[in-house]
Amino acid sequence: MASWVPVDPCSHFSLRNLPYGIFSTAANPTPRPGVAIGAHVLDLAALSSAGLFSGPLLSSQAQSFQQTTLNSFMALGRPAWMEARQSLQRLLAAGEGALRDNAELRERALVPMHDAAMHLPAAIGGYTDFYCSREHATNVGIMFRGKDNALQPNWLHLPVGYHGRASSVVVSGTPVRRPWGQVLRQAGHPPAFQPSSQLDFELEMGCLVGPGNELGSCLSVGSAADHIFGYVLVNDWSARDIQKWEYVPLGPFNSKNFATSISPWVVTPDALAPFECEAPPQDPPPLPYLQQPQGQRRNYDVRLEVAIQPGGGGGGGSDASETVVTRSNLRTLYWTLPQMMAHHTAGGCNLQPGDLIATGTLSCEGAQGAGCLLEATWNGSRAVQLSDGSERHYLLDGDTVIMRGYCQAEDGQRVGFGECRGMVLPAPALR
Amino acid sequence: MASWVPVDPCSHFSLRNLPYGIFSTAANPTPRPGVAIGAHVLDLAALSSAGLFSGPLLSSQAQSFQQTTLNSFMALGRPAWMEARQSLQRLLAAGEGALRDNAELRERALVPMHDAAMHLPAAIGGYTDFYCSREHATNVGIMFRGKDNALQPNWLHLPVGYHGRASSVVVSGTPVRRPWGQVLRQAGHPPAFQPSSQLDFELEMGCLVGPGNELGSCLSVGSAADHIFGYVLVNDWSARDIQKWEYVPLGPFNSKNFATSISPWVVTPDALAPFECEAPPQDPPPLPYLQQPQGQRRNYDVRLEVAIQPGGGGGGGSDASETVVTRSNLRTLYWTLPQMMAHHTAGGCNLQPGDLIATGTLSCEGAQGAGCLLEATWNGSRAVQLSDGSERHYLLDGDTVIMRGYCQAEDGQRVGFGECRGMVLPAPALR
Repeated sequence: MASWVPVDPCSHFSLRNLPYGIFSTAANPTPRPGVAIGAHVLDLAALSSAGLFSGPLLSSQAQSFQQTTLNSFMALGRPAWMEARQSLQRLLAAGEGALRDNAELRERALVPMHDAAMHLPAAIGGYTDFYCSREHATNVGIMFRGKDNALQPNWLHLPVGYHGRASSVVVSGTPVRRPWGQVLRQAGHPPAFQPSSQLDFELEMGCLVGPGNELGSCLSVGSAADHIFGYVLVNDWSARDIQKWEYVPLGPFNSKNFATSISPWVVTPDALAPFECEAPPQDPPPLPYLQQPQGQRRNYDVRLEVAIQPGGGGGGGSDASETVVTRSNLRTLYWTLPQMMAHHTAGGCNLQPGDLIATGTLSCEGAQGAGCLLEATWNGSRAVQLSDGSERHYLLDGDTVIMRGYCQAEDGQRVGFGECRGMVLPAPALR
Repeated sequence: MASWVPVDPCSHFSLRNLPYGIFSTAANPTPRPGVAIGAHVLDLAALSSAGLFSGPLLSSQAQSFQQTTLNSFMALGRPAWMEARQSLQRLLAAGEGALRDNAELRERALVPMHDAAMHLPAAIGGYTDFYCSREHATNVGIMFRGKDNALQPNWLHLPVGYHGRASSVVVSGTPVRRPWGQVLRQAGHPPAFQPSSQLDFELEMGCLVGPGNELGSCLSVGSAADHIFGYVLVNDWSARDIQKWEYVPLGPFNSKNFATSISPWVVTPDALAPFECEAPPQDPPPLPYLQQPQGQRRNYDVRLEVAIQPGGGGGGGSDASETVVTRSNLRTLYWTLPQMMAHHTAGGCNLQPGDLIATGTLSCEGAQGAGCLLEATWNGSRAVQLSDGSERHYLLDGDTVIMRGYCQAEDGQRVGFGECRGMVLPAPALR
């Protein structure tokens, strides 16, 4: 599959991918939908205005690509998404001249990626974060409750999740300020209010919801996949010292709600389909409303990594090289996204287009399999070494956390997510 | 303070009140802002079109009253709210003819309340629920941990809260479907998936946020009150059997996210100001970022009640009379709304116009002081008697829960919230 737009062999954005995002340029600061192809962004607002989406569904929904978010397009559902994908793959295919040979439109619509500023792909009305990696839940459980009680009694029966804070979801590249918060420095003493000294990343993935469900209805585990518009990388920044003190009994709050970063490009289920793989077997078998027939329990084989690049605050220069501290994969996720969605809606809760549903920290077995520093440093008891000679128990000011993820086809072509990055800014002055 | 619009002496909507809401009528189904006065709704879109808001702030923001939600008006802030209130109190005052004597406009703008359908007052982007009644937290703590460990160690140091689900917040009058969910019927056995048999109400109040704060900034406890647009009654419906099984370790999820009801009329701080009262003293003193100088720790003296009216499913007829099962008051709230907001934003989390921040269950001392059936029945161990001779441990299908709240001035005039009501529908058929 080749395109007339040049695509580097290692690019995450081959013609097989075509992820959607919202971008703007200095010349046209209005955020608008685009698709990534190689090192370019294809302007869907321009293509749509030029009448290049001629299929029956999109020609009647032309305004979907004239919005500052993807919510309208997300709400259209799979048939419209497939029509768009077919149109785009045709327009970009080697040998297809409709766009390639229209110099004026091509000039306008094909924007070098380094000229594009990326925005949140959707207005995210609801953000839900789950806790669905067995390796992660087990590690955390052993750390705090010992090996014999690692998993809580409910963990193998339902995808444990909680409502996150949607207003503070930010797009990759947005710096993240170290939060102040209440911390219990010594048991039995009063807490202190101070900048978090245990700032952590959490490597996650998430899906953005397409068509939702009405309040009072539910999504079956078999139909939920059709309600997934696409996937992003998620960094669920966490302040562990704040979390430990605040989370009983209602769950994490200020330890998480200061920021959640997502990658700007939304990779579609159609692009990921060739990389489907079997999800882990479930024992005990889940209740019927969560049961996926063997062979339909699918994850994707997404290779994930997290790197830390020390900056001004880390002792190195601002151009210090990065160190990969985590290598993980989506494939071992115990509860799948359709299971999470079926559970989320089982009592009638409504999902809406643009909602973000995240997996929870994705840890794997192996020396570098820890999806967060809490696990990698085993609750801060051992350090992670960086290539500049420094070490980390938790993140320092100036550190940039970079998450990457991609699938690789047998021919080497990639369907990737690009990056989700964020630099840690120092806490604000005393409040 | 009298109006030329007739106002019953017991009405919640005297000229002192003027709460804002969003309504529509059969003749004009477009939702639009209105103000309640006696048994009428005053159409602010019509007044604004007619140029009756002539103050400097609102005349330049005339579109704020031409929206289907109050978010734009909420975002304007206190000076604009005060201007609107002054204009409305003047237009409605006895002796003022500008609207009274304009028969055509009066006919159009003054709608009988029984002709108005009420909608959510705002597009609620974020819903946060706290747990700030000491009486409630103590009762629940004694029930589950015994008298000596009733309050968790963090409870006296911070307003414990969690993120709720904004998409399922509904306006009073919307029926609520009993949710299905996972329930542990017997410890050590597998859970079952079934309709909740422990459906409960939670009597709460909440504020709707006016101007928010930027991500990374915070609201000081001294300035937070200026960011409150107004207050509503909140019923945080809860499925106790689902909650007990799911909530460890990340907090309530499906036990709460199926529905939250709010009253349609938003009562402003200006209307409530005469009913301010001292909030309870705090010992230990909170950390400085939560400290309100003595004399500035204020709640409002809002008399609250909850009634249950049995319906088709309750054994009585659909016109069975209601029974008041709870009498409580906002005045004993331990952590005040400004403290909740200062804590919510302490780490940099951003609030936005229209966000809902709820207090948690408001229980008081006294025989009927329990703000939910969990407390009133002491975890289901004793029944609540209804006037039709039936009894309740938890809610039955067909029950309507009616919450009311008002402040009463010395002359008997009321500033009230009207009602927040919802009928329990049977769970959907087997899923």
